[in-house]
Amino acid sequence: MPDKVSIALDAMGGDHGPAVVVAGAELSHARHPDAEMVFFGDERVLEPLLATRPKLREAARIVHTDVAVKMDDKPSQALRQGRWHSSMWLTIDAVKKGQSGVAVSAGNTGALMAMAKFHLRTMAGIGRPAIAALWPTLKGESIVLDVGATIGADADHLVELAIMGNAMARVVFDLDHPTVGLLNIGVEEVKGLEEVRDAHRILRTMARDHLDYRGFVEGDDIGKGTVDVVVTEGFAGNIALKTAEGTAKQIAAYLRGAMSRTLAARIGYLFARQAFNTLKEKMDPRKVNGGVFLGLNGVVIKSHGGTDAEGFAAAVDLGYDMARYDLLAKISQTLGPLTPDMSAEPIRGVAS
Amino acid sequence: MPDKVSIALDAMGGDHGPAVVVAGAELSHARHPDAEMVFFGDERVLEPLLATRPKLREAARIVHTDVAVKMDDKPSQALRQGRWHSSMWLTIDAVKKGQSGVAVSAGNTGALMAMAKFHLRTMAGIGRPAIAALWPTLKGESIVLDVGATIGADADHLVELAIMGNAMARVVFDLDHPTVGLLNIGVEEVKGLEEVRDAHRILRTMARDHLDYRGFVEGDDIGKGTVDVVVTEGFAGNIALKTAEGTAKQIAAYLRGAMSRTLAARIGYLFARQAFNTLKEKMDPRKVNGGVFLGLNGVVIKSHGGTDAEGFAAAVDLGYDMARYDLLAKISQTLGPLTPDMSAEPIRGVAS
Repeated sequence: MPDKVSIALDAMGGDHGPAVVVAGAELSHARHPDAEMVFFGDERVLEPLLATRPKLREAARIVHTDVAVKMDDKPSQALRQGRWHSSMWLTIDAVKKGQSGVAVSAGNTGALMAMAKFHLRTMAGIGRPAIAALWPTLKGESIVLDVGATIGADADHLVELAIMGNAMARVVFDLDHPTVGLLNIGVEEVKGLEEVRDAHRILRTMARDHLDYRGFVEGDDIGKGTVDVVVTEGFAGNIALKTAEGTAKQIAAYLRGAMSRTLAARIGYLFARQAFNTLKEKMDPRKVNGGVFLGLNGVVIKSHGGTDAEGFAAAVDLGYDMARYDLLAKISQTLGPLTPDMSAEPIRGVAS
Repeated sequence: MPDKVSIALDAMGGDHGPAVVVAGAELSHARHPDAEMVFFGDERVLEPLLATRPKLREAARIVHTDVAVKMDDKPSQALRQGRWHSSMWLTIDAVKKGQSGVAVSAGNTGALMAMAKFHLRTMAGIGRPAIAALWPTLKGESIVLDVGATIGADADHLVELAIMGNAMARVVFDLDHPTVGLLNIGVEEVKGLEEVRDAHRILRTMARDHLDYRGFVEGDDIGKGTVDVVVTEGFAGNIALKTAEGTAKQIAAYLRGAMSRTLAARIGYLFARQAFNTLKEKMDPRKVNGGVFLGLNGVVIKSHGGTDAEGFAAAVDLGYDMARYDLLAKISQTLGPLTPDMSAEPIRGVAS
């Protein structure tokens, strides 16, 4: 466990830029006063924002740069124009150099993934990176991965996703043996894609105290919280995530409509306001804001671009946990026994 | 347009069997008094159920069989043991022989699809069948297909899905030019699977009054009702459908919890009860009950196995529309201009 957690922040990322990043960092810093916050971006904008926040200012460092990746830059363009100098690159570079334990950005997802892959490279034993999402469930939260880092997955990649998700659940949920399921259509073994069936066979052979694999789960098991970690290929995972977000918004719209239609309903709403606020909080996507890039030699957190200070703070909180409880070491520990031919080699960028 | 619509009903299918099938048929018959209802199943059970329903009895025929496919039979097993004699087979056979315009079953989905494929065969110009779902949206309803008939889809199959969904939307929503979108992750053309990109290119070249293609949509566009028809491969489509169902149930559970927690909330609930009932109705999966098997020489409707009379009636209503407004002919019309080499051949099983 590191003595001090340093968090690298891309101050120029997101739809609202430094204003939201600094305000979010302040909220998270109040919850984690031992964290150092390093802002990468335009100091002329950042200094005045920090000047009014003396507690945060004390824990903060600013690394100035004029270059920012735009929200609509193509990944290749961002990599070409934003390498070495952009706030996004420098944020990742701080992790690469071991100066910070985690990078957080609300910038363009494609550009962030391209830069993170290029600069941090994939961990030994991992073929491709993944994006993991925290998903609110009836039991609390689950981790779903991959939600869109790569399209298509063979059985080996699905097994890697299971291992990475398992390590993340140990860190984020503080569980010794998180349960893991494989997303499929139908729970009978005969169904599903060949890759998914092959991954199922491999995961079943793993020792329970190594990885507690519970078999296939279906789309409706995610919200039930049937398992702590739901493993799926990135195309289906992204569609599941977006579909759930769309359904939640749709029901919220129905609810607003229904509660304002009649006088009785409006009176009812006044009585039940506290209950509605609780519900709103449960459904609040900002509370679970932040996709985690897994499988690289360094942890990068992607916050939603359109988020506010509360949402950005949730992403920073998540980053804090990842750095504090050493996610990368936990992934390597789980990978280790599976890749005996590599276990003798030191894994680059990972504290042991 | 046929003079009279005959609907073949698998009376032994579903978790609750004849009781729900007969009660559902009665509800639907009250809305469509011109329909003939043909029940395939055990007459010793069916006769007493129909005896108490004189109006339905008049419009009904019973075709007796002792054999029923079980809900947990494997498709191959159902096909081996249930062929020729089971209520499910006879229901499909009535469509095959042109005695009924549509078959409706709440039985085992895998068995129903296996029998329907085996007996009805795919339409000329269609490689593989699909299951289409009606999806409630903020604008009304959309059609989503494929939600699980086959796994994996090349560009040609995605184009076929677009054509079949387009024809179904014309029938079910009574639209001249339904809008069609292709489910993808991200709306930029660079993203997504190669098959999806190829299908996108083909669909873009189609004339607007032939098929009104609107490009890529994402998971959250389904609930918004961005397009009338959402086209996707069966694995991702099934996961999207189940995930949305799970999310709706999850939010309903949150809502119940929130509204019963305090006295004020319970009072509020009493005032707003009517509004909650409206909301419940909007979210009621029974109202949109029924997957439609498309691409075969005959229309088969799959109702949820666990549904009640109201839900089964919704599936029968849907079947009525398909038969009355001649879905198969509409699919052939749209396919025709795309497959000029086949346009001279008569398409088997389709009235022109």
